[in-house]
Amino acid sequence: MKDKTLLMIPGPTPVPENVLLAMAKSPVPHRSSEFSAIFDEVNEDLKWLFQTKNDVFIFASSGTGAMDAALSNLLNPGDKVLSLVIGNFGERWAKIAESHGAIAERMTVPYGEVINPADLEKRLNEDVNKEIKIVTMTHSETSTGAVNDVKTLCEIIKKHGALSVVDGVTSVGAMDIKPDLWGIDVLVSGSQKGFMIPPGLAFLTADEKAFEVHKQCKYPGFYFNWSSYKKSLAQHTTPYTPAVNLIIALHTALKMLKREGLENIFARHRSNAILLRNSLRNMGLKLFVDDDKKASYAVTSVYPPEGVSVGDIRNSLKNDYDIIVANGQNDLKDKIFRIGTLGFVSERDILTVVSALNAAINKLKR
Amino acid sequence: MKDKTLLMIPGPTPVPENVLLAMAKSPVPHRSSEFSAIFDEVNEDLKWLFQTKNDVFIFASSGTGAMDAALSNLLNPGDKVLSLVIGNFGERWAKIAESHGAIAERMTVPYGEVINPADLEKRLNEDVNKEIKIVTMTHSETSTGAVNDVKTLCEIIKKHGALSVVDGVTSVGAMDIKPDLWGIDVLVSGSQKGFMIPPGLAFLTADEKAFEVHKQCKYPGFYFNWSSYKKSLAQHTTPYTPAVNLIIALHTALKMLKREGLENIFARHRSNAILLRNSLRNMGLKLFVDDDKKASYAVTSVYPPEGVSVGDIRNSLKNDYDIIVANGQNDLKDKIFRIGTLGFVSERDILTVVSALNAAINKLKR
Repeated sequence: MKDKTLLMIPGPTPVPENVLLAMAKSPVPHRSSEFSAIFDEVNEDLKWLFQTKNDVFIFASSGTGAMDAALSNLLNPGDKVLSLVIGNFGERWAKIAESHGAIAERMTVPYGEVINPADLEKRLNEDVNKEIKIVTMTHSETSTGAVNDVKTLCEIIKKHGALSVVDGVTSVGAMDIKPDLWGIDVLVSGSQKGFMIPPGLAFLTADEKAFEVHKQCKYPGFYFNWSSYKKSLAQHTTPYTPAVNLIIALHTALKMLKREGLENIFARHRSNAILLRNSLRNMGLKLFVDDDKKASYAVTSVYPPEGVSVGDIRNSLKNDYDIIVANGQNDLKDKIFRIGTLGFVSERDILTVVSALNAAINKLKR
Repeated sequence: MKDKTLLMIPGPTPVPENVLLAMAKSPVPHRSSEFSAIFDEVNEDLKWLFQTKNDVFIFASSGTGAMDAALSNLLNPGDKVLSLVIGNFGERWAKIAESHGAIAERMTVPYGEVINPADLEKRLNEDVNKEIKIVTMTHSETSTGAVNDVKTLCEIIKKHGALSVVDGVTSVGAMDIKPDLWGIDVLVSGSQKGFMIPPGLAFLTADEKAFEVHKQCKYPGFYFNWSSYKKSLAQHTTPYTPAVNLIIALHTALKMLKREGLENIFARHRSNAILLRNSLRNMGLKLFVDDDKKASYAVTSVYPPEGVSVGDIRNSLKNDYDIIVANGQNDLKDKIFRIGTLGFVSERDILTVVSALNAAINKLKR
């Protein structure tokens, strides 16, 4: 019996059955009043989930597409970007900046750690000529399970005058993040995470200050051009054919999320993550991010116990219990494994993965 | 009873039931051997459908994303592009080129007509200093239903030395197009067309000559960078999270297409389009592209009969018969309507739409 897979990775995350069934309906024509009515509701619900009064653009793309769209709409060759790097996805911002001809300076901490706001403040104070145009950061770093203090970091950036560009791929819909209140200028996310739908949609919201900078961008490209999405959104549609079935799925998922309520969603993610973290500690396992205050509620990274490999644990969970957890990435591959707890994940799922992990380790140690 | 919609628009096209059901399964983790095995089969089958020995990259995006990816990977600011424009999608190539800082020259014909190869030859002969780096064109122009002679045009471009970049969005999987044999350097397409799956995936294949030019591109951007897709494809995966459910749907659809066979697919589209065109003529209707040799087999544009509006026809087809046909675009809006016949469309669907159109017009003329 191998058809009961429990996905406990930081994306794709489990999709509710009624969302899958909504997605499986025949495509709706996208230039129709029926689609526009659904699309309008989705846009309103996205603003609610993103806690913003600004538009949230929907791209047919991976989350990385929205990251690229964030910087390609702002940068001109030679511009200077400061990238706060606490893991692979923080590093990705720097690479994207460079792919558009910008100069990326990295402020890097050992992976598992987070950016110290005082260090950012010091660096920005040194930038007396205001050469740094954009500061990029990751909220919940999927590769490590650490979480930056976005609120404090964005306050510091605002004082300097640079734009803050934030990766909320594994935080929006899982952890509290308030772009309007915290002064985040650009925030992006992806569908296969807190949104409880399969991969293929990405989201971007930008404030007025970011739009002003966008207007100075000489070659923003075509597909991801913010101005096209803004213009079409006012006309209840998208500039290019949207991924209609994924948007129908999103429509259903957002209604479920609204019924649960923002505070409940965040509380569920928090309590699930804390339950998981404490259970892992009780099993004698070492957490990669040990300080609960620096830990993401979306993904938890764990060291395997002495004498047991990451591969053994992942294989046993998969083969014996049909549970998928993620390996570490790049340098952390085979050093840690990662358990995703974002999206359509319940307390029962946490109990299940803890029980199975316990059983797997007992077997492997025997 | 309003749940039997027959989509007769040039995208999204009807999706077979077993493709919808395959898509509705829970997401597969994309970094797994299971997914890679499916992905490899999809890539082999795509090469078959695209009639190329080169890689076919799969993007999570609309078809326009692949068009943007074609030019963003080749152009540097100031480069010169010649865009052959026979409709809105031909014009889109020029706009994309300009969005990357290139200079786009348009060779435009009245919409409904196609490019005369002699005109292209004359223009390229004048370009003695070989300033034109790229020539863009549309194969099947979705906004008009006309079809360019891509084979002859690409032969002329090859003699000149420029790269040919071709929009096969509504032709690949519907009409014969042979990139390797015809010397097409870059060919793009989109999933909600001949591929029989919902929108959200786009495809691009580029030959060695195009890759050589790509290497000179200073700022190719990040998300659509060909080099990343090429590198990942060799490792049986994608550089960023793929739209896994759409790829599973594509896997199923490609198996169906292979069972039918390329020659049969093209013959079905041809005979369906000819049946439709002759039936419309027999009803006394005037075709926007009257010459069968210049007509797309993917979409047919029709003038409404004297005294009946496009809106009336579309409303009657929708409200009385649950059949969706498309309006004209931009200047052609409310002047013509367009009937899509690509993808999962059978002879029975043609008989159905003709009968319903006949009944609708009789009612409206009464």
